[in-house]
Amino acid sequence: MTQIDFLLGSWIHGSLPSGGALNITSLSANLNASTDAPNFLLELIQRTQTSLILILDLPPRKDLILNPEYLKTFYEQTKLDSLRQKLEHLPEVRPYFSPSLYIRAVTSPTAIMVRVDTEGGAPGRMEEIVGEHISPVAKEAMDIWLSQCACGERSLDEEERKYLEMRGEVTKRKTVEIDLSTSFPRLFGEDVANRVVGVIREVYKV
Amino acid sequence: MTQIDFLLGSWIHGSLPSGGALNITSLSANLNASTDAPNFLLELIQRTQTSLILILDLPPRKDLILNPEYLKTFYEQTKLDSLRQKLEHLPEVRPYFSPSLYIRAVTSPTAIMVRVDTEGGAPGRMEEIVGEHISPVAKEAMDIWLSQCACGERSLDEEERKYLEMRGEVTKRKTVEIDLSTSFPRLFGEDVANRVVGVIREVYKV
Repeated sequence: MTQIDFLLGSWIHGSLPSGGALNITSLSANLNASTDAPNFLLELIQRTQTSLILILDLPPRKDLILNPEYLKTFYEQTKLDSLRQKLEHLPEVRPYFSPSLYIRAVTSPTAIMVRVDTEGGAPGRMEEIVGEHISPVAKEAMDIWLSQCACGERSLDEEERKYLEMRGEVTKRKTVEIDLSTSFPRLFGEDVANRVVGVIREVYKV
Repeated sequence: MTQIDFLLGSWIHGSLPSGGALNITSLSANLNASTDAPNFLLELIQRTQTSLILILDLPPRKDLILNPEYLKTFYEQTKLDSLRQKLEHLPEVRPYFSPSLYIRAVTSPTAIMVRVDTEGGAPGRMEEIVGEHISPVAKEAMDIWLSQCACGERSLDEEERKYLEMRGEVTKRKTVEIDLSTSFPRLFGEDVANRVVGVIREVYKV
């Protein structure tokens, strides 16, 4: 039986009041309560040709402080942090701090949250970074997620399953709330925001 | 009645096998289970005259995902992130990623974890940064902690108090384990490490 609850891929394009355009590409994969393994999240936010924000993470589904074994299994032993380190070495890459404290809290200690800035660099440098660095790192993260999260077996009791469902509900509601109440209406206007979030709500069942 | 469980201040100085010296100054203040407000943590790690690692945080005592009100009260409304932003603007300051994923997980979304590097700068630049930037920011964080955490009143039921005690035990044990099993013996040898950690264990009661 599949352990995947749902996959959500989206590409959002909008014109900004300031004159530029905004492109957000995102892919999230959520597991169901038959496993407690982390979910998968990839988000690319592009405002200009020379700037990119990348969020790539396997967000945990349990409190890592009360579950040190979980931290060890999914984050230490998988060596996920080495992927973050690979990108960190590029001179165009700097850590990115989301203005949303919730997003910072919901991500894992190995989350890749970076801003890429190629302004003043050679033409095509952004494409080079995406193709030669970000893409392989994202594929490696996806491989780790597929082999060790989506396809791994975990034995859970009823109480743990209920906890995962409850925590999943909270994070889905909160994601919708953040998208709906902050970024989307400002970027796309009320109408488009409501339509997009309507679809997300359907997938999320919240 | 005081809400403070204990204060722990320490200054550790050691010679490194590589020839340099290491100075770690730390101050932590832990609250007891009559409140769920965050603790206080300040750590300064200095290896050379021109490099400094600063960890300044009000570590949460609850899972922020399941407690969005807690995130709002202690981290959003206190505007703690503005302190992090003040330091971020200095050219000598870069984000610091602790090699311990546990330390990354236990800190808050507004944690200040930075590396200051003044190599090649004017003589006395490090002292200037500490005196004019780090010190005021640390004082502001301490003010926020004193007024809104240590002295604020929170009404908790028995179940919440038990949870806080249990979570506190886990974090204290884990801190001792990390200090004892990784950094201290390597830095100071087994004997000194055991003596220092012995004192910490006494304060922590673990």
